[in-house]
Amino acid sequence: MEKAFIIWLTGLPSSGKTTLANRLKEILLSRGFKVEVLDGDEVRKWLSPEAGFSREDRERHLRRVAYVSMLLARNEVVVIASFVSPYRNIREEARRLAENNGIRFIEIYVKCSLQECMRRDPKGLYQKAVEGEIKDMTGIQDVYEEPLNPEIIVDTERKTPEECIKELVNEMQKFGLI
Amino acid sequence: MEKAFIIWLTGLPSSGKTTLANRLKEILLSRGFKVEVLDGDEVRKWLSPEAGFSREDRERHLRRVAYVSMLLARNEVVVIASFVSPYRNIREEARRLAENNGIRFIEIYVKCSLQECMRRDPKGLYQKAVEGEIKDMTGIQDVYEEPLNPEIIVDTERKTPEECIKELVNEMQKFGLI
Repeated sequence: MEKAFIIWLTGLPSSGKTTLANRLKEILLSRGFKVEVLDGDEVRKWLSPEAGFSREDRERHLRRVAYVSMLLARNEVVVIASFVSPYRNIREEARRLAENNGIRFIEIYVKCSLQECMRRDPKGLYQKAVEGEIKDMTGIQDVYEEPLNPEIIVDTERKTPEECIKELVNEMQKFGLI
Repeated sequence: MEKAFIIWLTGLPSSGKTTLANRLKEILLSRGFKVEVLDGDEVRKWLSPEAGFSREDRERHLRRVAYVSMLLARNEVVVIASFVSPYRNIREEARRLAENNGIRFIEIYVKCSLQECMRRDPKGLYQKAVEGEIKDMTGIQDVYEEPLNPEIIVDTERKTPEECIKELVNEMQKFGLI
């Protein structure tokens, strides 16, 4: 069992990252870990209040998140970072920063088709993007680069959140994390 | 003894903040605390690579630092934040964020006259400011707002670093921090 590590959830908006992050947090807390969930809106408010959603802004924001994740994890706090984080290069940067500091980095692809994410759309963001109100929406105007080799894939389209969490915990045990 | 808290060192450039931060870190580590020093240049590189030294940029940067400090401290990591942090309003914001999260915030004024800081000037920054190469230097073109009511004042002009550290540790004991 590791003292701390970084769980990096990546996936399209509405793919189910936040749900998984919060469930996973409960499980890890109950096993005695310290845990911080770093999640989109709340973290943006503090780290990048001025940023928009251009590629440059997103990259800058995710670099901040990667740094904060590293600071926490090297002090034995498990980080669950839950961000669309659409670009491979930045996810790789986050991984390098962690691993260069001796921290394990687990990339989890929260997989769900664009069609299904658009059907869910709990915040109405896809709708706004389709109507042109939002200009930089991942999946619509902006690219989402699927992970090529993530440690874990959870299929939130075909499985219930409960099944996904069970699978996630199983995989994490196989990796010797918990 | 508290599990964690935030030590916020504020003072003019070249007043001796970094020296104190590093010595204090050693002492706290030897007493079993987890400690992170957040210090000017290194933290800027990650959190605010695009920022300059305008009031707006500095405030934004210090807000990020305040947030990161809070995340660490609420996970039982002592934070030593060492920044010029020239504006009262932002230091107060950092304090509120900490205290609203149940974290003690200790403002330490690293006191040294502008004249003496300009004499030391190890990085040659004051010289550059006087020559007009730097435009936003605290103490020259930009204001430094002295703390009105800091928890601790250390006088690095009249005392050696060793004396300052001894005093600092004494005061921290009186505050029940260590």
